[in-house]
Amino acid sequence: MKKNVLLVNGPNLNLLGTREPSVYGFTTLAELENEVTSLLEEHEIRCLAFQSNSEGTIIDWLHEHRDAQFLLFNPGAYTHTSVAIRDAIVGIDIPFIEIHISNIYKREPFRHHSYFHDIALGSVVGLGTYGYELAARFAIEHLNRHS
Amino acid sequence: MKKNVLLVNGPNLNLLGTREPSVYGFTTLAELENEVTSLLEEHEIRCLAFQSNSEGTIIDWLHEHRDAQFLLFNPGAYTHTSVAIRDAIVGIDIPFIEIHISNIYKREPFRHHSYFHDIALGSVVGLGTYGYELAARFAIEHLNRHS
Amino acid sequence: MKKNVLLVNGPNLNLLGTREPSVYGFTTLAELENEVTSLLEEHEIRCLAFQSNSEGTIIDWLHEHRDAQFLLFNPGAYTHTSVAIRDAIVGIDIPFIEIHISNIYKREPFRHHSYFHDIALGSVVGLGTYGYELAARFAIEHLNRHS
Amino acid sequence: MKKNVLLVNGPNLNLLGTREPSVYGFTTLAELENEVTSLLEEHEIRCLAFQSNSEGTIIDWLHEHRDAQFLLFNPGAYTHTSVAIRDAIVGIDIPFIEIHISNIYKREPFRHHSYFHDIALGSVVGLGTYGYELAARFAIEHLNRHS
Amino acid sequence: MKKNVLLVNGPNLNLLGTREPSVYGFTTLAELENEVTSLLEEHEIRCLAFQSNSEGTIIDWLHEHRDAQFLLFNPGAYTHTSVAIRDAIVGIDIPFIEIHISNIYKREPFRHHSYFHDIALGSVVGLGTYGYELAARFAIEHLNRHS
Amino acid sequence: MKKNVLLVNGPNLNLLGTREPSVYGFTTLAELENEVTSLLEEHEIRCLAFQSNSEGTIIDWLHEHRDAQFLLFNPGAYTHTSVAIRDAIVGIDIPFIEIHISNIYKREPFRHHSYFHDIALGSVVGLGTYGYELAARFAIEHLNRHS
Amino acid sequence: MKKNVLLVNGPNLNLLGTREPSVYGFTTLAELENEVTSLLEEHEIRCLAFQSNSEGTIIDWLHEHRDAQFLLFNPGAYTHTSVAIRDAIVGIDIPFIEIHISNIYKREPFRHHSYFHDIALGSVVGLGTYGYELAARFAIEHLNRHS
Amino acid sequence: MKKNVLLVNGPNLNLLGTREPSVYGFTTLAELENEVTSLLEEHEIRCLAFQSNSEGTIIDWLHEHRDAQFLLFNPGAYTHTSVAIRDAIVGIDIPFIEIHISNIYKREPFRHHSYFHDIALGSVVGLGTYGYELAARFAIEHLNRHS
Amino acid sequence: MKKNVLLVNGPNLNLLGTREPSVYGFTTLAELENEVTSLLEEHEIRCLAFQSNSEGTIIDWLHEHRDAQFLLFNPGAYTHTSVAIRDAIVGIDIPFIEIHISNIYKREPFRHHSYFHDIALGSVVGLGTYGYELAARFAIEHLNRHS
Amino acid sequence: MKKNVLLVNGPNLNLLGTREPSVYGFTTLAELENEVTSLLEEHEIRCLAFQSNSEGTIIDWLHEHRDAQFLLFNPGAYTHTSVAIRDAIVGIDIPFIEIHISNIYKREPFRHHSYFHDIALGSVVGLGTYGYELAARFAIEHLNRHS
Amino acid sequence: MKKNVLLVNGPNLNLLGTREPSVYGFTTLAELENEVTSLLEEHEIRCLAFQSNSEGTIIDWLHEHRDAQFLLFNPGAYTHTSVAIRDAIVGIDIPFIEIHISNIYKREPFRHHSYFHDIALGSVVGLGTYGYELAARFAIEHLNRHS
Amino acid sequence: MKKNVLLVNGPNLNLLGTREPSVYGFTTLAELENEVTSLLEEHEIRCLAFQSNSEGTIIDWLHEHRDAQFLLFNPGAYTHTSVAIRDAIVGIDIPFIEIHISNIYKREPFRHHSYFHDIALGSVVGLGTYGYELAARFAIEHLNRHS
Repeated sequence: MKKNVLLVNGPNLNLLGTREPSVYGFTTLAELENEVTSLLEEHEIRCLAFQSNSEGTIIDWLHEHRDAQFLLFNPGAYTHTSVAIRDAIVGIDIPFIEIHISNIYKREPFRHHSYFHDIALGSVVGLGTYGYELAARFAIEHLNRHS
Repeated sequence: MKKNVLLVNGPNLNLLGTREPSVYGFTTLAELENEVTSLLEEHEIRCLAFQSNSEGTIIDWLHEHRDAQFLLFNPGAYTHTSVAIRDAIVGIDIPFIEIHISNIYKREPFRHHSYFHDIALGSVVGLGTYGYELAARFAIEHLNRHS
Repeated sequence: MKKNVLLVNGPNLNLLGTREPSVYGFTTLAELENEVTSLLEEHEIRCLAFQSNSEGTIIDWLHEHRDAQFLLFNPGAYTHTSVAIRDAIVGIDIPFIEIHISNIYKREPFRHHSYFHDIALGSVVGLGTYGYELAARFAIEHLNRHS
Repeated sequence: MKKNVLLVNGPNLNLLGTREPSVYGFTTLAELENEVTSLLEEHEIRCLAFQSNSEGTIIDWLHEHRDAQFLLFNPGAYTHTSVAIRDAIVGIDIPFIEIHISNIYKREPFRHHSYFHDIALGSVVGLGTYGYELAARFAIEHLNRHS
Repeated sequence: MKKNVLLVNGPNLNLLGTREPSVYGFTTLAELENEVTSLLEEHEIRCLAFQSNSEGTIIDWLHEHRDAQFLLFNPGAYTHTSVAIRDAIVGIDIPFIEIHISNIYKREPFRHHSYFHDIALGSVVGLGTYGYELAARFAIEHLNRHS
Repeated sequence: MKKNVLLVNGPNLNLLGTREPSVYGFTTLAELENEVTSLLEEHEIRCLAFQSNSEGTIIDWLHEHRDAQFLLFNPGAYTHTSVAIRDAIVGIDIPFIEIHISNIYKREPFRHHSYFHDIALGSVVGLGTYGYELAARFAIEHLNRHS
Repeated sequence: MKKNVLLVNGPNLNLLGTREPSVYGFTTLAELENEVTSLLEEHEIRCLAFQSNSEGTIIDWLHEHRDAQFLLFNPGAYTHTSVAIRDAIVGIDIPFIEIHISNIYKREPFRHHSYFHDIALGSVVGLGTYGYELAARFAIEHLNRHS
Repeated sequence: MKKNVLLVNGPNLNLLGTREPSVYGFTTLAELENEVTSLLEEHEIRCLAFQSNSEGTIIDWLHEHRDAQFLLFNPGAYTHTSVAIRDAIVGIDIPFIEIHISNIYKREPFRHHSYFHDIALGSVVGLGTYGYELAARFAIEHLNRHS
Repeated sequence: MKKNVLLVNGPNLNLLGTREPSVYGFTTLAELENEVTSLLEEHEIRCLAFQSNSEGTIIDWLHEHRDAQFLLFNPGAYTHTSVAIRDAIVGIDIPFIEIHISNIYKREPFRHHSYFHDIALGSVVGLGTYGYELAARFAIEHLNRHS
Repeated sequence: MKKNVLLVNGPNLNLLGTREPSVYGFTTLAELENEVTSLLEEHEIRCLAFQSNSEGTIIDWLHEHRDAQFLLFNPGAYTHTSVAIRDAIVGIDIPFIEIHISNIYKREPFRHHSYFHDIALGSVVGLGTYGYELAARFAIEHLNRHS
Repeated sequence: MKKNVLLVNGPNLNLLGTREPSVYGFTTLAELENEVTSLLEEHEIRCLAFQSNSEGTIIDWLHEHRDAQFLLFNPGAYTHTSVAIRDAIVGIDIPFIEIHISNIYKREPFRHHSYFHDIALGSVVGLGTYGYELAARFAIEHLNRHS
Repeated sequence: MKKNVLLVNGPNLNLLGTREPSVYGFTTLAELENEVTSLLEEHEIRCLAFQSNSEGTIIDWLHEHRDAQFLLFNPGAYTHTSVAIRDAIVGIDIPFIEIHISNIYKREPFRHHSYFHDIALGSVVGLGTYGYELAARFAIEHLNRHS
């Protein structure tokens, strides 16, 4: 049976490609989701992509997809404020990688702390939208090793 | 006229009985709500139960039920992050008890602070789902004393 | 073409006029929105008013109205907790004033920090609902100067 | 054989019922000890009650009663200062509940920290002298579950 | 009898219009005092304007004018360092608004704290010299309401 | 009826006159107690003097003498560590002055905080054993004013 | 030759007897200075009294009177902010007592720190204007002992 | 004349050998005291051993034995909380070594600070009950060097 | 001309494959360097690999290779302590990625801070030795984009 | 036209040569001003020297001499407390060197922070009154380079 | 086969006996190494002694001697700064004791923290060079117990 | 006999003149060492210059040259991290001046602390490479005064 990888993007990432392109680049969210989906499909893995600006909606969606095998997660601003999403991920017990497009350590101090980095397998930070591809490669590697 | 007690559970508590049972036990949320409702009914008090993963939805619901006489509240992860729910409770001016199933003081430091514990009448922490029954007994006692 | 000013009120401000009137006064939210709208209309500016208790809903609404020229914003309790709304405002790149009805510096220490005050043009704090009128006057002044 | 529950009250609780009744209520310590004893006796459990103003005396007494099965403990002011009593409880390895009559989170900041809350099963805070009854009920429940 | 409003500007504000105009604008202190005076005169209120670079001189002047009904106050750098002026205002018991021309929250961290913001009615920050007009309007409103 | 003033000295003050005389002087505790007693007797006030090295014993003694009208208190090292004695004084509701023979602000940082200075009427610090006489004079003045 | 004692009062103490009498009492500064002068004169000591609201003026005055033998000093708000007056006192090398009329430890946290308490012989805090008399008595004692 | 070495153990060390043997080992306090006494006797030094759970009792005992030449001290939990015992040791002016059976730096953060380590000659930490023997050897060495 | 990528590993990484394999895996440093070299060679990029346990030696080596176009850097323990290597990298002005094999955010708090993360383009953390491959892929991508 | 260098000394520096000579040396302020003036005159630069104990007076004087080309400044105790003088210097936009006679880093912690060191070109600390000569040499060098 | 004990001394300990003898005593490093070697040889244990001023060289040496059974380690100044040596010791997985000649808790605050004390078996602090002998005795005891 | 002055430059200062010239200027290290040597030679003082990127190598070199009379020291990045070099300087007991080319107080916060500034005679900061000449002048002055 095909394995499922969740690709979840948090608040304001729907603006990708249009918001502050000097920081976030010109790739739109749809393009990004397509690229990751294609890469995963090459390895016979299904990709389920989701974006929401609402903390509660993200939690609901994660609960509904708790059967998936891996999560690629860019929590956006909820990185720094959401204990509730942290608890949701721990609750559904799914391995994940935390992704940040920009280098959060070059920005305001309140962006240096993450509620996810100590429960993630690891993180890819500051490598632009290319970081999603790298994280997806890791997911493929990880699922192969553990299947 | 019958008095109303609100029983509100915050994010991820819908997973109760299925998430980390070693921490949270095997009782489901539905069973828990039934038990509290039954206990209150024995004392001629109506119980209105609610759960949501969304901060704003909890606020909306509290506003709509501002006529109730008491609140039994497990804010889940919003304990540590939600000034908005705090303000909602102060705004509707309702006495309440804060309930935590697990002992938050044995867990990560960010769980040691609560935005509710200084405005609650009191709290019941770490006594498992049995803590709801104890809190409900206090509600009964409190409503008898003040009626 | 007419310019648009957004008037956004955050959580619990729907209770205005009924919640803690000694703190927040007796003006209701509808009355307040009408007053601001009238004042702006006198200067040929359209006012779009919005209130929500949900962080994500506020972000959605701001995204949808990103063509507006100015924002009058009382973030309510999200002042102190929402990096996501902060990012939304930066993302849509709109000048704004932060408004607080009560003097937040007379209240709990956690209300002394704002996630908005360093990205706003400025702030009007503690002047009651009259602060909205002053902020609106500034918006008029600002739009005249920059048109 | 009958099980033993220890009921230990720390410094100044001998003044109960006479000291600051607006904060601590009108029940005296003797009345309180009688009520808890009666409740436990109904369930065939013996209650051994003790109060002292001296840290060392409390430690001595706990050592002497290390065969008991449960501890109901209101450490009073030693909550915030006594590592020695903490060590005594860990040393005799007895499950316990921490009880506070008043809501310590509404009081001075130095009362917000407890040397006991991370080693207790849980705590009951701010529910007046009624909190002892609730804690005793939990003890009964706990002893039944583990016998 | 005519009411008196004090308009006090702290250290370096005598340089207004000549110091860092990109930050503080081109209006001079004399022009600013005239504008506020005119606005107040329209409402039959007398304006007494004062500026000094010396902490003690400001205190002396405030003591001498303790019969006034309202204070418009830009403490300049003394915002962050003067407990003595704070005490002077409390001592003469006069309602006041704190005004800052620039947005102090965009500047050095030591400018984020004010010894006045918790005793003022409120504050107007970052709205340029136009902030004085808004504060004066509030003073008029306030004096009308309380006369 | 004669009024009673309590004179309580905390741990190690029994060594007075023999311990570190360069810091504490050559007056012994007995001499000191006699001097204070004599001064108070001149004003028809009875002095009850007590010293103990044990926190709990001091609490017990204070409880037993809760009918007294004033307390002269040098808490010694318990100044910095005893919430329990603080609670005892609040519990028996007696006005008191905190006395320190040496200037605690010239010593280790942990001596700069006192659990008593915010509940005392005031304090006399660093004036040697002569500080007791000054405090006693204040007690006389205070009792005259309030009788 | 007669010895000189300086009596220096800092900012806002000229308002004594008229400002917040519930906190500071009804004695005026002139009355207070007279009382201290009389007491010292009884012991053949000359009292030189001074009050200013200006930090620099106080420093100038202290420099001019550096031949005096003792200083009774209530620094008022400069207690918490003036390193310069601290340096002036160290520079003229004069023994002194720090006096506070109100109990600064019952007030805002920024009043708990003093730039003088570690260089003073000692302090008298919270004993009202009577504290000046006690400090003067200590000065007499001190000058007798060291002459 | 024979020299005296004091061996003082603080709270809960009477449980040695029975409390948490995985942490503290199987040697009882009596055995430990015998071993140290024997070793000292071999060098013609008398050992006076004492244990108490009470802070005040330890102070009293130290005062009574102030003629001794050396102190071997395991303050137990009072390491982290007792300024009073610190003062007692400084008061009787006796050289001492601080001993801890377990490695306090592997335990809770509040155990990392000691009120004794800056006034002791030195410390032996984490070497089990064997640490007492090492400390005793140092005492012998020290007394030989200074006699 | 061929581009050069530097691959630098800090202290203790010579133990790779033999030290704590549960944390760091079984790949040796030589194998790892070979894998990265091969991948880069496929894209016509030369890889220069280096490891040292000495801070100064790493600085020397970086200075000598300042003509390279990219740096893959695992600073090991120097991540948390070396301002000097930070300065060396800034001094030779070379773009780089920070790599950590283990998830440093699951480890001791002193490992959560990095002297490199704010000057790196980005970082790959916690993805095991596979993280080097991902970082190398980014280097290839980056060099292609900027050539 | 001759260039002007300002030499400004802050509070208590009028005591130079008489106050604590072991710390500050025996050179008087007049001698020091003469030496610096002579050195500057040798290079055809006019020196304007000023000293005041008053923060506001220093600000006034700086405003009046805003046409000068360089400032040699020893802020004395205002180093640590005066935001107002900092603002004055920024306002008149003059390059300056901060001078301290004693090594402020060997003194109390509150002397380790300066409100000037981040806006000065640089600082000369702890080199006695000779530091003024060195700073003057730098001024000469600087003015030559920029003329 | 003979067991090996490593004796490693960190930076500046080569100066032993010549540097600050009032602090460190007159024993030279060579003498100290001889004494420890002799003591260990008596128990058929080989001692390998090493000293270096370089962090990296110490790491290299530890890697090369990873087969040893025990480490006696005085990290000197690297106690407070070297995560890299900490990692080296954890990497070679060797039990060790941390030794300090002087009492680091009587010295500057930055010497109170150690990067080794939580991973060592224990520590011997402040007992002069005699502390090495005590630590060696413990090593002997430890190796006997575990062979 | 000629006196020796050591001129030691820490890590990355070998890049001087080539690294970030906008910050550090165009003078190379060799030129700088020549200038200082010439100046000292004019006063019959020998200059021994040294630079290294390695902490341990600097310590070794300092030990070898402990007979010198003065040290001019720019510790570079080791300013902020090296307790070991601090100890080496204290160990060889040599007077020194700390030099920084750039103004470290305008840079990252971790550069504001120095492990040398409290043990140096003083410091010259932010005056470019010209600061070395000023420091050398002070050395000459100092050696003249103390010979």
